[in-house]
Amino acid sequence: MCQDAVRETYVNSGEIIHREGGTLMGKSKIWLRGLSLMILSMSLYGPLRAQETQPSNLTHLQLQLNLMPMPANVQTGYGSLKIDGGFTVALAGQTDARLNGATERFVERLAKQTGLLMNVKPANGAKGTLVVRVDHDSKPVQELGEDESYVLEVVPSGASITAPTDLGALHGLQTFLQLVTVSPDGFAAPAMVIKDTPRFPWRGLMIDTARHFIPLEVLRRNIDGMEAVKMNVFHWHLSENQGFRVESRKFPKLQQMGSDGLYYTQDEIRGLIAYARERGIRVVPEFDLPGHSTAWFVGHPEFASAAGPFTIERRWGIFDPAFDPTNEKVYKFLDEFIGEMVKLFPDHFFHVGGDEVNGKAWDANPKIQEFIRAHDLKGNAGLQLYFNKKLQGIVSKHGKSMVGWDEVLDSTLPKDIVIQSWRGQAALAEAAKQGYRGILSNGYYLDLGWSAARHYAVDPMGDVAAGLSAKEKQRILGGESCMWSEFVNAENIDSRIWPRNAAIAERLWSPADVRDPALMYARMHVLSVQLEWLGLTHENYSARMLRRITGPASAEEFRALRTLADVVEPVKDYAREQTATEPATSETPLNRVVDAIPLESRVAREFDEMVDSYVASSCHDASLAAQLRAQLILWRDNDAKLQSLEQRSFLVKEVVATSQDLAAVAAAGLAALDALEHGGNRDDAWKAQQSAVIQQTSKPKGQLLLMAAPAIQKLIDAASAGGSCASAKQ
Amino acid sequence: MCQDAVRETYVNSGEIIHREGGTLMGKSKIWLRGLSLMILSMSLYGPLRAQETQPSNLTHLQLQLNLMPMPANVQTGYGSLKIDGGFTVALAGQTDARLNGATERFVERLAKQTGLLMNVKPANGAKGTLVVRVDHDSKPVQELGEDESYVLEVVPSGASITAPTDLGALHGLQTFLQLVTVSPDGFAAPAMVIKDTPRFPWRGLMIDTARHFIPLEVLRRNIDGMEAVKMNVFHWHLSENQGFRVESRKFPKLQQMGSDGLYYTQDEIRGLIAYARERGIRVVPEFDLPGHSTAWFVGHPEFASAAGPFTIERRWGIFDPAFDPTNEKVYKFLDEFIGEMVKLFPDHFFHVGGDEVNGKAWDANPKIQEFIRAHDLKGNAGLQLYFNKKLQGIVSKHGKSMVGWDEVLDSTLPKDIVIQSWRGQAALAEAAKQGYRGILSNGYYLDLGWSAARHYAVDPMGDVAAGLSAKEKQRILGGESCMWSEFVNAENIDSRIWPRNAAIAERLWSPADVRDPALMYARMHVLSVQLEWLGLTHENYSARMLRRITGPASAEEFRALRTLADVVEPVKDYAREQTATEPATSETPLNRVVDAIPLESRVAREFDEMVDSYVASSCHDASLAAQLRAQLILWRDNDAKLQSLEQRSFLVKEVVATSQDLAAVAAAGLAALDALEHGGNRDDAWKAQQSAVIQQTSKPKGQLLLMAAPAIQKLIDAASAGGSCASAKQ
Repeated sequence: MCQDAVRETYVNSGEIIHREGGTLMGKSKIWLRGLSLMILSMSLYGPLRAQETQPSNLTHLQLQLNLMPMPANVQTGYGSLKIDGGFTVALAGQTDARLNGATERFVERLAKQTGLLMNVKPANGAKGTLVVRVDHDSKPVQELGEDESYVLEVVPSGASITAPTDLGALHGLQTFLQLVTVSPDGFAAPAMVIKDTPRFPWRGLMIDTARHFIPLEVLRRNIDGMEAVKMNVFHWHLSENQGFRVESRKFPKLQQMGSDGLYYTQDEIRGLIAYARERGIRVVPEFDLPGHSTAWFVGHPEFASAAGPFTIERRWGIFDPAFDPTNEKVYKFLDEFIGEMVKLFPDHFFHVGGDEVNGKAWDANPKIQEFIRAHDLKGNAGLQLYFNKKLQGIVSKHGKSMVGWDEVLDSTLPKDIVIQSWRGQAALAEAAKQGYRGILSNGYYLDLGWSAARHYAVDPMGDVAAGLSAKEKQRILGGESCMWSEFVNAENIDSRIWPRNAAIAERLWSPADVRDPALMYARMHVLSVQLEWLGLTHENYSARMLRRITGPASAEEFRALRTLADVVEPVKDYAREQTATEPATSETPLNRVVDAIPLESRVAREFDEMVDSYVASSCHDASLAAQLRAQLILWRDNDAKLQSLEQRSFLVKEVVATSQDLAAVAAAGLAALDALEHGGNRDDAWKAQQSAVIQQTSKPKGQLLLMAAPAIQKLIDAASAGGSCASAKQ
Repeated sequence: MCQDAVRETYVNSGEIIHREGGTLMGKSKIWLRGLSLMILSMSLYGPLRAQETQPSNLTHLQLQLNLMPMPANVQTGYGSLKIDGGFTVALAGQTDARLNGATERFVERLAKQTGLLMNVKPANGAKGTLVVRVDHDSKPVQELGEDESYVLEVVPSGASITAPTDLGALHGLQTFLQLVTVSPDGFAAPAMVIKDTPRFPWRGLMIDTARHFIPLEVLRRNIDGMEAVKMNVFHWHLSENQGFRVESRKFPKLQQMGSDGLYYTQDEIRGLIAYARERGIRVVPEFDLPGHSTAWFVGHPEFASAAGPFTIERRWGIFDPAFDPTNEKVYKFLDEFIGEMVKLFPDHFFHVGGDEVNGKAWDANPKIQEFIRAHDLKGNAGLQLYFNKKLQGIVSKHGKSMVGWDEVLDSTLPKDIVIQSWRGQAALAEAAKQGYRGILSNGYYLDLGWSAARHYAVDPMGDVAAGLSAKEKQRILGGESCMWSEFVNAENIDSRIWPRNAAIAERLWSPADVRDPALMYARMHVLSVQLEWLGLTHENYSARMLRRITGPASAEEFRALRTLADVVEPVKDYAREQTATEPATSETPLNRVVDAIPLESRVAREFDEMVDSYVASSCHDASLAAQLRAQLILWRDNDAKLQSLEQRSFLVKEVVATSQDLAAVAAAGLAALDALEHGGNRDDAWKAQQSAVIQQTSKPKGQLLLMAAPAIQKLIDAASAGGSCASAKQ
């Protein structure tokens, strides 16, 4: 149905390559200057002509790139398909309940996204605005490596999605939703041909529902988000020292005594698995063994290595309790328990954790130490291997393949196990060399507060994995982002996962050379708004939490807190635990500013880009200078506006020091800007003085990092006598 | 439990009267200047000392006034009760499922509002941070006029709610939630004694779920909102020309053919009634008869006055189809139908509509005209009275009291009927004089887009009703706000109801002399934020709809649309229909700017207040002048920032003219401000020229009103030669 002439547009590390009929028509450098990238993400339709390869055209090209994850291959066409209330979908090929349901959800979402009234029922046959054609049935239980490819064609007269199975069709529908936007004449999707298939077959998100219980409704909307970015594995972390979250009917004391009443019933679990399956997503359960297991022992102390009784752990960290590998009853229990769980979780993979056993409970138990000696095991590691082998046998007996964290790797285990690496590509490559399949999570820990760009740069095939043989590379199945939940709950978890998770999803789906961070950010911000239509709350939650923090406040007061909140980030990595005045527990309220702000400051990033562009202009760009000045003045004067709130709210009082730091660094930035624009003293002493201001703010206060500081240091450097701008302007 | 010394604080039309131990300690004028009122709504705790009756103390007083509806009597105390994770509720008196449930919901909401973890289960007995003591059971089916009073006492060591029945306790819990806010030392509720009881026993909200179907989930969150503002009647408008929304098992063709599949099942209705009852809210169903009834006739044309077939009406307006009052089968049908419905709706009142019968179907039917002659009826009005009498008999036979709109009033009907007046206090007073009870809705139509202050000024006892005898006044039961749904759907209905409905709720609950609009607005804005914790979307929906309108946009572009959207309102009263280029129908998308903005512009109102304060300062207040100038410059320069969006989005293009108008009036305002600050020509010609600019913008474009214009006209008037400020400054 796509008879129009097509042309190809590749984007490769900041360069746009434009071909027509195989001929190179032009190349253009991605043209970014500070905040202007956002303006490029516009939606102008109409034919792209060959001579239009100047920067002004990026408007058009960027439109086509408002897809995330970026498809494997995009060819742009002429014109666009109008979307109005008469929009219909026809199912022309193989159909089943999943495809029917997906089509209805698709139309509902399209109606929501446009505000148009639409008939959600798909028609059978070949007549519809969008025709979906699927060749054959997918597997009744979704399998690793099923064909997820699809072809999406859009021409002004209609659109089609063609896919081997409904899995590909589901992905095509999501791509179509991302194509539709407002235009000068109504809503429309631009003409193009997309041929798409994922780079990796395992693209997962792990949510730790054990440290903080996460309600089903929150999981459902996150699964909707996963569908939007074409992730296909929900890894459900279900047990921890702090909670056992699954109803066991054979061992009901597990949830009755180990969960504070916060667990998922078997019916709820079946419901969530069905919900995920409808969205092309497998569900892999994880029961962490033999460590991370205090909550199991509250109801069943007889399986622990130390004497009970045990209580649910409230603190965070690594704790001593562990299963007793020398107790044969443990294996009998695990056999029965896993036998019950595999009936609940149909996926072929079963995750047993296996990480962070500190061995203290084993060291302290003479019977266990004697067992190690008697069986000639290599200390505690040998004991854990002994446990893992028996556990693998149980998992295998129940027809499943075992997944475990790095620690389970041992060359004596069968080759069907899968290693999930929190250690990195080297560990993964080592596993692959030994013949084991693996998935990468190192670099994808969402709770550490890294920037989207930093996650985005991590590639499962990067680092030493790049040196693997083709056969070994095939064993790298993909990766999983991980949402550990020490400092997240139902209220802010969406904001800890989104939108940054989309960058990881793209890394796992799109071709390896789709890696320009600036283009990624532009698309991510567009997607982020779209994700809110799914009910995700990552954009809205912040204002609501900040309102709780201020209490009744004037518009100006609220703006002042917002201005500060927009330019700070929570401390990174494990500093939240390390810098706490008193250790947080699972009962600590998450209602502070540090909980109410996104983990990545867009304002700070864009300010930093603006500074780079200004310095790159040899500080000649007066318009950028004016924008920088306006931002710095706002920051400098903000603390005064916040003072009335600081006196009224203990939660605002906590950020006073950071607010004062912002005023100080902004003043230093203004001094640098003055020096750059008007000259004057900027010798080493001046530089040292200004830099000292920045340095003083580098220590986090209230567990917040002031993200504006590094960019202001760049201005100071530029202004100092030896700086690049200084010489240019002198 | 309240041993602390107390003092009373009355607020009466802009004056604060402060007594201690019965002695008048001071009076102070409410001190308002432009936007500063918001700053007064602060939360500073600590004892209020006798000498602190200067304006600076309003900070404290306003805190105590962050209650809506304002209680009948408030006495402030010393100190405050700290709210932390150890907060508990004890039920000391009579308890039942409703009170238990309400207490759990209360703790859940308190936990949400503070971000603290709390134990939601109430304790039985007298030990708890908050002790709730109820004397006796309320009625199994809530009745009109049950005692809803309560006493809420808060001292630093604890709080108590005492009420005759759980109805009062429910209200007390809501008041307590409004008292809790952030403080310098944590969350807290200030010490006080509140003795509260409603002014009117019937305080309703009508939602028209027939013209646009409104999903149950949306109704539920609006019922939560009603509970928060102590409304006690949900009037459920269930049938219209455009849809019949109830499942009838006796006459299933009603919903099967008359609803497009959009109706409430009987189970869902029972669920919603239970949900409302749990919140102290009665549910009164309305089936509009004999007009407004096209949708009934799609399945049952045999009851219509004209020959069928009929189709569901898609247009808005008054239509001809009406039941045939001369057909005895109609009464047999209504008897059976109402018999089925009274089993579903337990409330004692049953609303039969009765409004806007245009009589055309009766005029056109010779058999009906012959009937009128034969029975010596007074034309169509007489025929409707004939119908009403028979209908009243049916309703009465089923044990219910009939409610109808103004048109049903006739002195020959029994005195137990209730008149709902869309015509006004005069009609209501007339009914009261004739011995009929009545409720006011004239002045409370939320869909007309009036300001909260305008609704707030309407009093059921106002106008001619003020002249009624005491006995007649007792017949005025209260009032109902009405949300007619031509231009609302699930997406924006919350924003059409809230927060303005809170002003009507206060009018119906609080003493008549609580009527200062500025204080009402200050409290309403605080409440509005709190209402979002219930899941209402009236604050958040706008940004989301505006994002749909812009499509992918830069932060600056989005701010530009927001700046315009913040200062416009949809056209008022029935102008939306009257000014449409083509008539809207139930299938018209509601995705335009006019649908995406609140019905009342807070920015425009506050700008207007600022202009008033500036003029009142004889234009000497330089700080206000600077604020006005900054706002006017922002408006003047905004259109340029919007131009890129105008070119990309047909929905932005629609507001181009209004955006240009804003630039023009802002320029005129700046000219006036220049003249006021720096002198210069401002003769009659100047004034005429500037006023012409304002005049040109008074015609709505894109169905939007530019709300900044009248305040700018005030500046022009002040600046003109004869203006008050001009002379002061010269």
